[in-house]
Amino acid sequence: MKNDENMESKGVSRRQMMIGTGALAASVAMVQFGGLLKSAEAKDGSTEKWPWPYEKLDPAKTAEIAYEEWYRVFCGAAVINSVFSQLREKVGEPYKSFPTDAFVFLEGGMVGWGTVCGSNAGAAIVANTIIGPRIAGGKEGHLITDDMFQWYSEASMPIFAPKKPKVATTLVKTTSESPLCHVSVGKWMKASGYHIGSPERKDRCARVAASVAYHLVELLNDWKDGKYVATGTHSPVKDFGITAQMNCMECHAGGVPTPPMAKK
Amino acid sequence: MKNDENMESKGVSRRQMMIGTGALAASVAMVQFGGLLKSAEAKDGSTEKWPWPYEKLDPAKTAEIAYEEWYRVFCGAAVINSVFSQLREKVGEPYKSFPTDAFVFLEGGMVGWGTVCGSNAGAAIVANTIIGPRIAGGKEGHLITDDMFQWYSEASMPIFAPKKPKVATTLVKTTSESPLCHVSVGKWMKASGYHIGSPERKDRCARVAASVAYHLVELLNDWKDGKYVATGTHSPVKDFGITAQMNCMECHAGGVPTPPMAKK
Repeated sequence: MKNDENMESKGVSRRQMMIGTGALAASVAMVQFGGLLKSAEAKDGSTEKWPWPYEKLDPAKTAEIAYEEWYRVFCGAAVINSVFSQLREKVGEPYKSFPTDAFVFLEGGMVGWGTVCGSNAGAAIVANTIIGPRIAGGKEGHLITDDMFQWYSEASMPIFAPKKPKVATTLVKTTSESPLCHVSVGKWMKASGYHIGSPERKDRCARVAASVAYHLVELLNDWKDGKYVATGTHSPVKDFGITAQMNCMECHAGGVPTPPMAKK
Repeated sequence: MKNDENMESKGVSRRQMMIGTGALAASVAMVQFGGLLKSAEAKDGSTEKWPWPYEKLDPAKTAEIAYEEWYRVFCGAAVINSVFSQLREKVGEPYKSFPTDAFVFLEGGMVGWGTVCGSNAGAAIVANTIIGPRIAGGKEGHLITDDMFQWYSEASMPIFAPKKPKVATTLVKTTSESPLCHVSVGKWMKASGYHIGSPERKDRCARVAASVAYHLVELLNDWKDGKYVATGTHSPVKDFGITAQMNCMECHAGGVPTPPMAKK
């Protein structure tokens, strides 16, 4: 069963290679896959056939939706809805059945605990729900997540400026060096002088969600075009022996503990 | 529209109060709600009617499923599947349409970045998908997430011992003092001496997922019985002016920065 799914997944991802030599054959393959997906929807686990059908989206339009949605559902669900609301229109199922608003809890690094930035978590959910988990054969969902987290950590945020900003102030930009809410928001608050409940901090986070949505759609569009190439250089288990960011001193200023390592 | 949803949600959560005075009336209310949910499934956003129908589960059975699932889909998806696989059988939709395996990416604190422990993220997804987001009227999904994170941070883990452990070794227990993967796994590795790729570390994480699934179902069962009372004491924005854990010195050993605060 798993093997069959893997084969289907590979068949579709090979589409781009086929276009040059036989566009008709490629179209037939897509129609067959589309039919399979549709008939499978009535069964258990039907939404676990990957990849989900995806149509290329406009990054700027997606970012504007994310910005507006932040003020309704906050960072994580805003990023998810910025992509899925459009795909509900363009594609329909399985996007219609996905309970996007349930992900409001991603706010504040998950109900205010300051863990992973909700925008990053939302991007990860989008990439992995569309492309599927690595155990289903395609690794691009996993790789895009990794790339997004590294890009976020290194970006001078917020990048995206909405057409109709809710706050007129020019916002300071900061680099988080981390995918975590607490670190990202904390560094921006320190640089800007704005407190957590200020309209400026809220608008900064809405613009971060929009910036993340913009870049996420760029990567998804590349993936759809068969042009996506992973760029991440994050390999903490190999380099440090533990799941982590790569800048240990950020939190371990007093000294980095040495984890037990496998014998080589 | 939102107001209508809120009213429906409140109607169901009031069910417990009604049981003492009129069990029949309560049953009628549930049947009506069930019918509403079913007919709504054909429409856009149909899975965004909350709460989703929930039937009480056996915590020990759920934990066993989570333990076994860890070896297939890892921590986050294991916790989600431990609950949703049972509700797919007992309830059907909307659980059948939820793409649980997409959440493999929660592994290693999201594709190995060591952010929030996938078991915690999985528990949050389950609680908020069933009960709904706070913007839909019910706050219990948000509160259960908060309670789970605090409980996880204070627990001596792993708690749950599976009937048929895949690793025979008695595993050291540690307290993470954090909901983060990196901190939780790192402290256990330091205390146990086992490296990240060891069978013992893997089994420890499988048992943590099982422990989380066990407690999550305890809280969901309480909620279903109208007995759930929030126990969390986590209030970082009020106390410290930023989204965070409450033990700042854990990472800020060199001194805790003072965030800009609102004027009082």
